[in-house]
Amino acid sequence: MRRGDRYERELVRMLWNAGFAAVRVPASGAMSFPLPDVIAGNGKRYLAMEVKMRSALPLYITTTELEALIEFSKLFGAEPFVAIRIPKSDWRFVHPEELKRTRRGYKVDDDVYLRGLDFDELVRGITQKRLFE
Amino acid sequence: MRRGDRYERELVRMLWNAGFAAVRVPASGAMSFPLPDVIAGNGKRYLAMEVKMRSALPLYITTTELEALIEFSKLFGAEPFVAIRIPKSDWRFVHPEELKRTRRGYKVDDDVYLRGLDFDELVRGITQKRLFE
Repeated sequence: MRRGDRYERELVRMLWNAGFAAVRVPASGAMSFPLPDVIAGNGKRYLAMEVKMRSALPLYITTTELEALIEFSKLFGAEPFVAIRIPKSDWRFVHPEELKRTRRGYKVDDDVYLRGLDFDELVRGITQKRLFE
Repeated sequence: MRRGDRYERELVRMLWNAGFAAVRVPASGAMSFPLPDVIAGNGKRYLAMEVKMRSALPLYITTTELEALIEFSKLFGAEPFVAIRIPKSDWRFVHPEELKRTRRGYKVDDDVYLRGLDFDELVRGITQKRLFE
């Protein structure tokens, strides 16, 4: 099992425990639809997530990946998030518009990471920034 | 590729072509969450489907499968459907409450199949029965 798989499963389990029905999405292969890694819903809110596991920041996201996440989310009707997992740290969830632009795509640096939502904030639907970070 | 996979892919492609973002859901394996085979959304409606491909009717569905579909759909916030594909026939989509009870589960016979929605009716959100079948 790829290490990324393990973290996707961890996230799916956390979402079920928090009252969301959640699924991992397999790569579409030859079909090449714009797909996220995880989809979740609780009857009120729908989430689409691109999951990124990295050993350290900054973490880079290609324009193609980000556009696929946004395109899927708009069509499906879901809030898009980049779900970030750094070993020995908690999950953080970043809206696409919070990412920093690079020459070739986007990145999550310490600043973006710290301003991301933690899991409780994600599932409680808190979208404002925390005051003391 | 299993034959069932091919039909799931066909259905996913038809849903994208009809303006829904749609995904195939892999079996959860050891995690054993109640999962459908296909999820779709178009920003207004969300669909969760158990896909059944059979060479002929009647087609049987276990209580466990049907309860998983209903449980997932309630929690996620989706309309549940059993998506039925008989070779050389079109897809039909049946609400769980339309299924006939058997001693061990549920079944789709000719009567249930013919009263199911066709694909256009499904994506247009038609839920009433057609008059002339």
